[in-house]
Amino acid sequence: MAVRTPDPDPEPDDPGLGVFGPAPSAPGANPGWLSEIELEEARRRLPMLYVEAIPVRTDGSGQVTEIGILLRSTPLGEMTRTIVSGRVRFGETIRDALFRHVENDLGPMAFPLLPPQPLPFTVAEYFPLPGVSAFHDDRQHAVSLAYVVPVTGTCEPRQDALEVTWFSPEEAASDAVAAEMEGGRGTLIRVALAHLGLLR
Amino acid sequence: MAVRTPDPDPEPDDPGLGVFGPAPSAPGANPGWLSEIELEEARRRLPMLYVEAIPVRTDGSGQVTEIGILLRSTPLGEMTRTIVSGRVRFGETIRDALFRHVENDLGPMAFPLLPPQPLPFTVAEYFPLPGVSAFHDDRQHAVSLAYVVPVTGTCEPRQDALEVTWFSPEEAASDAVAAEMEGGRGTLIRVALAHLGLLR
Amino acid sequence: MAVRTPDPDPEPDDPGLGVFGPAPSAPGANPGWLSEIELEEARRRLPMLYVEAIPVRTDGSGQVTEIGILLRSTPLGEMTRTIVSGRVRFGETIRDALFRHVENDLGPMAFPLLPPQPLPFTVAEYFPLPGVSAFHDDRQHAVSLAYVVPVTGTCEPRQDALEVTWFSPEEAASDAVAAEMEGGRGTLIRVALAHLGLLR
Amino acid sequence: MAVRTPDPDPEPDDPGLGVFGPAPSAPGANPGWLSEIELEEARRRLPMLYVEAIPVRTDGSGQVTEIGILLRSTPLGEMTRTIVSGRVRFGETIRDALFRHVENDLGPMAFPLLPPQPLPFTVAEYFPLPGVSAFHDDRQHAVSLAYVVPVTGTCEPRQDALEVTWFSPEEAASDAVAAEMEGGRGTLIRVALAHLGLLR
Repeated sequence: MAVRTPDPDPEPDDPGLGVFGPAPSAPGANPGWLSEIELEEARRRLPMLYVEAIPVRTDGSGQVTEIGILLRSTPLGEMTRTIVSGRVRFGETIRDALFRHVENDLGPMAFPLLPPQPLPFTVAEYFPLPGVSAFHDDRQHAVSLAYVVPVTGTCEPRQDALEVTWFSPEEAASDAVAAEMEGGRGTLIRVALAHLGLLR
Repeated sequence: MAVRTPDPDPEPDDPGLGVFGPAPSAPGANPGWLSEIELEEARRRLPMLYVEAIPVRTDGSGQVTEIGILLRSTPLGEMTRTIVSGRVRFGETIRDALFRHVENDLGPMAFPLLPPQPLPFTVAEYFPLPGVSAFHDDRQHAVSLAYVVPVTGTCEPRQDALEVTWFSPEEAASDAVAAEMEGGRGTLIRVALAHLGLLR
Repeated sequence: MAVRTPDPDPEPDDPGLGVFGPAPSAPGANPGWLSEIELEEARRRLPMLYVEAIPVRTDGSGQVTEIGILLRSTPLGEMTRTIVSGRVRFGETIRDALFRHVENDLGPMAFPLLPPQPLPFTVAEYFPLPGVSAFHDDRQHAVSLAYVVPVTGTCEPRQDALEVTWFSPEEAASDAVAAEMEGGRGTLIRVALAHLGLLR
Repeated sequence: MAVRTPDPDPEPDDPGLGVFGPAPSAPGANPGWLSEIELEEARRRLPMLYVEAIPVRTDGSGQVTEIGILLRSTPLGEMTRTIVSGRVRFGETIRDALFRHVENDLGPMAFPLLPPQPLPFTVAEYFPLPGVSAFHDDRQHAVSLAYVVPVTGTCEPRQDALEVTWFSPEEAASDAVAAEMEGGRGTLIRVALAHLGLLR
């Protein structure tokens, strides 16, 4: 299975540069961050910083009742499951990156409730070679700060995701779901369930 | 300053017994939990389990903007500041206890968003003798699981609290506020701010 | 399977009273804590505060390599697996209780390295009725603060434990080990492994 | 005060490349990571991933008794205080990076006990412009995973650090120490103390 950490950046009209003006050496349309070629180069030389989010539904007492997992079609037409994931840009806060990627992947009507604390529930290390950790990404070395994000609205995935499927905690922890997830993210779901007191 | 962990239990019409029926040895009106005399006795012999909640306001990205602190009048007419606090009952889950005390202290229109994860941001140990830890309660040995709880509605304190005052993170961390708080809870506020990435 | 949270207290020569002198109403041999009869009574009326510890071996970089699980013989001669577990006494800090029970269960040569932070990796809620949470204890409602404790020495279980068996993370997470553990503690092991970055 | 996140990489004889062989596009002496010029360029275009460590002394029960802070001379001869800090390399695990920088900064006889869990106590975001967060670094946008690391041996700082000064928790939290620390790391010390249950 082709396993990749999705990264829609850079977009031509990307508004999310952050607090900094153009870097002197980046005269083009997207100053301050990298062209696709430069980004490809950097991916082979530096660990990339990512944020990831597992959307959840909660009941009135805050208890998680359902886990949202994205269904996606790969360029080869394969169906895989994944979670909200994306790169942190130069000058962007982690909170802003998390909000941006949740909105990108779940649509503007998802109404996410980002956690008040900055600490992720885990740090996932993706390596190009499988086996170094539970996670891998054949394209890069990525370090991801992973969060659980309750959403209250309607998820309408944008970009290349087809839909959000809601699973019970038991289903989300199953081997069947894990086998469909890319890059070892079935493990990430289980770690999230453990953090939520929902792993059995 | 009289420093006490508030405990409104038992109330004559308390509905919160939880999942268990009457204990055989408790034939009275409040089966399964203790009379006031028995509770007083237990307080001198066993650590009591508490939950505490710091109400907060957040902005659209989940960032905490204000910290809510309760203003209360003691039986002697002194004004002190405190947070949501109360005992966990026999058979009651921590989540249910947290929800019950938040509603008791902030009123039914506060609309609290309890955290999805069960882990508190800290465990505060209150001892009858000052100095054993940062926290003390001259009435008992209490161990408190402390949570940050965003609220979106209107707080109308019930029971003996007069109002909820909203402070900026800087004000909430100040020595002035800490000096007005009972039982060492100024420290608890600062630990919460550190957890929220708001301590300077 | 008989499932009980072990509690060796009170011992006639128990030295662990803590920081407080005798309570006025407890003139007997064990002042400040409860007789067995009183403790039995309290168990049916109040949540009991526990600490639990999962002993681990680590390599030179701090990575956990093995999980220690206690093998125990029940009064009926059944063999069950469990972890370090015990009650927090009146006036005792959580750290002192954790140290006391680790030493009680692993012997004086285990050389435990208690974590520097007071926050447990999870809070486990044991209810007398199965199904309320992942954990149950037919004797009481217990709330347990659970810690991972690296040990560097030799474990010689005392009391009713027969031995400490060291498992690889994979073995410790297996259904086979979980089936032998009492009170749902197989789940606790998995939550610990998730916290340690070792769950797959 | 010149405030910089120290980064001794790349060293000519640096052995720490990690699990990967030379990248095809890096035929020179330091394949797989960046030349100083390339690194300077990347620093203005991508967030850099860092690890930081606060060395501590603990007593026999694991309680932290002292906080270690590095005293350093800047190129301009100014004295500043800082903590262990350094970049994560391409292909390197966070644990390996943490161990490498602790050894680099504290010497080979410090005998650090890295935490068994991968989660940092906080994530610190350093921005080139002051005021975006509590932390800043005029050279780059760095995101740092910060850990508390008990050390049992003798610290002999290498590189440009002059010594490790051991402070009591009260001293370490003081405004005087914070004023001497670079990049806002006085805040990081306070967040660590809150995490350790030592903030008042």
